[in-house]
Amino acid sequence: MSQQDFGVIGLAVMGENLALNVERNGFSVAVYNRTPARTEAFMAERAAGRRFKATYSLEEFVASLSRPRRILAMVKAGKPVDDLIQQLKPLLEPGDILIDGGNSLYTDTERRVAEMEAAGLCFFGMGVSGGEEGALNGPSLMPGGSREAYQALEPILTKIAAQVDDGPCVTYIGPGGSGHFVKMVHNGIEYGDMQLIAEAYDLLKNLLGLNHQQLHEVFKSWNETPELNSFLIEITSQIFTYIDPETHLPLVDVIVDAAGQKGTGRWTVESALEMGVAIPTITAAVNARIMSSIKAERMAAAQVLPGPAAHFSGNTEEFIGKIRDALYCSKICSYAQGMALIAKGSQELFDHQLHLGEIARIWKGGCIIRAGFLNKIKQAYSENPQLANLLLAPEFRQTILDKQAAWREVLVEATRAGIAVPAFSASLEYFDSYRRDRLPQNLTQAQRDFFGAHTYERLDKPGTFHTEWVPIQEAGKASV
Amino acid sequence: MSQQDFGVIGLAVMGENLALNVERNGFSVAVYNRTPARTEAFMAERAAGRRFKATYSLEEFVASLSRPRRILAMVKAGKPVDDLIQQLKPLLEPGDILIDGGNSLYTDTERRVAEMEAAGLCFFGMGVSGGEEGALNGPSLMPGGSREAYQALEPILTKIAAQVDDGPCVTYIGPGGSGHFVKMVHNGIEYGDMQLIAEAYDLLKNLLGLNHQQLHEVFKSWNETPELNSFLIEITSQIFTYIDPETHLPLVDVIVDAAGQKGTGRWTVESALEMGVAIPTITAAVNARIMSSIKAERMAAAQVLPGPAAHFSGNTEEFIGKIRDALYCSKICSYAQGMALIAKGSQELFDHQLHLGEIARIWKGGCIIRAGFLNKIKQAYSENPQLANLLLAPEFRQTILDKQAAWREVLVEATRAGIAVPAFSASLEYFDSYRRDRLPQNLTQAQRDFFGAHTYERLDKPGTFHTEWVPIQEAGKASV
Repeated sequence: MSQQDFGVIGLAVMGENLALNVERNGFSVAVYNRTPARTEAFMAERAAGRRFKATYSLEEFVASLSRPRRILAMVKAGKPVDDLIQQLKPLLEPGDILIDGGNSLYTDTERRVAEMEAAGLCFFGMGVSGGEEGALNGPSLMPGGSREAYQALEPILTKIAAQVDDGPCVTYIGPGGSGHFVKMVHNGIEYGDMQLIAEAYDLLKNLLGLNHQQLHEVFKSWNETPELNSFLIEITSQIFTYIDPETHLPLVDVIVDAAGQKGTGRWTVESALEMGVAIPTITAAVNARIMSSIKAERMAAAQVLPGPAAHFSGNTEEFIGKIRDALYCSKICSYAQGMALIAKGSQELFDHQLHLGEIARIWKGGCIIRAGFLNKIKQAYSENPQLANLLLAPEFRQTILDKQAAWREVLVEATRAGIAVPAFSASLEYFDSYRRDRLPQNLTQAQRDFFGAHTYERLDKPGTFHTEWVPIQEAGKASV
Repeated sequence: MSQQDFGVIGLAVMGENLALNVERNGFSVAVYNRTPARTEAFMAERAAGRRFKATYSLEEFVASLSRPRRILAMVKAGKPVDDLIQQLKPLLEPGDILIDGGNSLYTDTERRVAEMEAAGLCFFGMGVSGGEEGALNGPSLMPGGSREAYQALEPILTKIAAQVDDGPCVTYIGPGGSGHFVKMVHNGIEYGDMQLIAEAYDLLKNLLGLNHQQLHEVFKSWNETPELNSFLIEITSQIFTYIDPETHLPLVDVIVDAAGQKGTGRWTVESALEMGVAIPTITAAVNARIMSSIKAERMAAAQVLPGPAAHFSGNTEEFIGKIRDALYCSKICSYAQGMALIAKGSQELFDHQLHLGEIARIWKGGCIIRAGFLNKIKQAYSENPQLANLLLAPEFRQTILDKQAAWREVLVEATRAGIAVPAFSASLEYFDSYRRDRLPQNLTQAQRDFFGAHTYERLDKPGTFHTEWVPIQEAGKASV
């Protein structure tokens, strides 16, 4: 019996599509699914006439693979991954490689890598972005695990990944859970991008009064600029053209304004908090989805909490350009935050310098945040691999300096009109905090020392100091 | 041998002060510390001549207490608490009560309550606020655990707590980890208050150009208003009067603007994320401390990222009043968020209606956030215990409607001047999102359905729907 080049466990749509992608690229593939009927259906339909081998037990599956075995698991994140590992471990042999292609939390992946390596096996946590279509035709892949083992995966992964001008959208990310960590940050950035687009839409529609044809045209024209050309801007422009066949209204107007989330945005914010990295734009995006979800409460509040009338009296065409600038400046801040988080992860989590420029490059195709803009980020890190923050890269720095007046003006108008722009605003606050040599937290430190003797540092000499500010009982009296 | 009424384990300053407070209020106290020298020093000095009994083993300590034993542990949060429980468990008898008065994470407390109750023992997680001075003279106490066991603690806790016009600053919070949960939210609110004050200070100093004498006077006058009268505003006014004896500058100007944090603010944000409650003001406060901590990076960025000149040309006196209004409106939003988080905790964590009005009341004295303002919150919940959000309480609603124009103007000026006000701004974004019946997340849902088939809901009929927006491969092409 000839042995198969690659194995896929889990034939839900992502697993099926990745298996088809691998086979189409010249590799024979063994498949296994817990429910045999799913495997039979796959073999009878999409896999018919192609180099697939169906297997109906993990023993049979493992036995059907050439060595070192290369196995991709596409099962639900969490316990199913651990269960699978327990079942597979006794069947595998040293050097065999198991890849978890699901959306696992990177700390789980860290643990699993250690557990598998202790048994002489290789474990990869691989972020897969691009949804069903990407899985089939070319995803962005973020594999993390042993660098040695990556050699055995590279010939396959580089073929199945999305292909862009400078190569396939895959690179060795780093050890341990770094692949899933980078995928998590990717998703956080995706939240940021989507929220920034939503805020631009809100201003265009509710401050400037654009109709759906005009919204379509604005986003279409933005998609033709080198700064904003991207998958998300493009689909946004297309969304406005879709008319609901039932109501004959633009479909987007019929959709409930309560956004769901699956947790990776929240994980990004939590990881950033744990590591002490500020990612306020991404945080605002996660919070904005939460606010959107309390729709009934908002509808009640709208009855009793009126704001100013949304009124705009300037030049609409010009202001559309300013909203575009605000969106772009905010987007730069959002990516600066995400990249800063990955850089901190390099030091704190993986003890391995994750290659920020390469990471930007492999996001250029296949994934939801694919955009021309990522070329500029790749370029910034190739000019200066030690860049402390994207805002300091010459191109981004100059762009923001040129556009900050427009960005500020958009925030001023939104504030006056009572239109919430939490991610635009968090981005500007990030910029204005980051570029400030002296923030007011000297007062915070004075307060902490005053009420809790937490001590402070001085600008003029090293050390920590404590002051008996005033008798604290005196201070307490007036307000008790 | 006569038995002691109460026991304290851990004689660091908080433990010592609470022990002295209990004894001063008429109870005899047994003390134990792992290092005997600490116990000896305490007995020889602060405890001399008072009704304390020193013990030098946990066996001796437990044997010295009347039943049911009431023991307060003031040890470091984390493993030391678990270690202590393991040592004490075999020594205690059914009905005995162990109180953890440290800053434990509420999920740890939940676990410990269950573990102790399984052994027939009672465990309390009790938030203690007010620092060293509060511990000695009257803290705000937030005890959570078994309601029955609380009866045995009440006579002591009501005596040692801070006393305000409507009673002692202690109440039975609820079961399980609810005491530590409420203390955690208290600390998150404290972060918010401190950040809002820092932003007001920044604007007064750097936009309006006030000197330290003027800053002192402004905060002093604010402390005399019913809205802002509070411990934190008061100590702020005092801080500006303190001249550094070495440089003869105001000491606050010599202090490094990099704020520390001990984790409870971060926990609050993480808990809110887990529970799906938006607390953007508190989140902005935690992020602002992080931004402040990257001082060296900021100093470098300041050289190359200039902003607009901070310039103010209006009426200074009037604008000071507007900053006060912005601070107060933001503070209302911050408390609205914290209270919403506690309300969500009632349902999701404790299956017990935490009494929001009582919680506001016990924060009126003893703790860092003590303020006249808390009376208004207590009042709001006593008028309407089902209040969905503080912003809807008649008083706060009217205040914000009256002051929102001033609040917006402050944000406009800060935005134009390039002075970061992340918590002022997050508060206004919260208000403008909360009062909006239609947010732009309908677009977010359309995007999610477009690229990931995540489905959406419709305004006009129930159910979930999916649309084939356009051939997705077409949509992908332009940007890859």
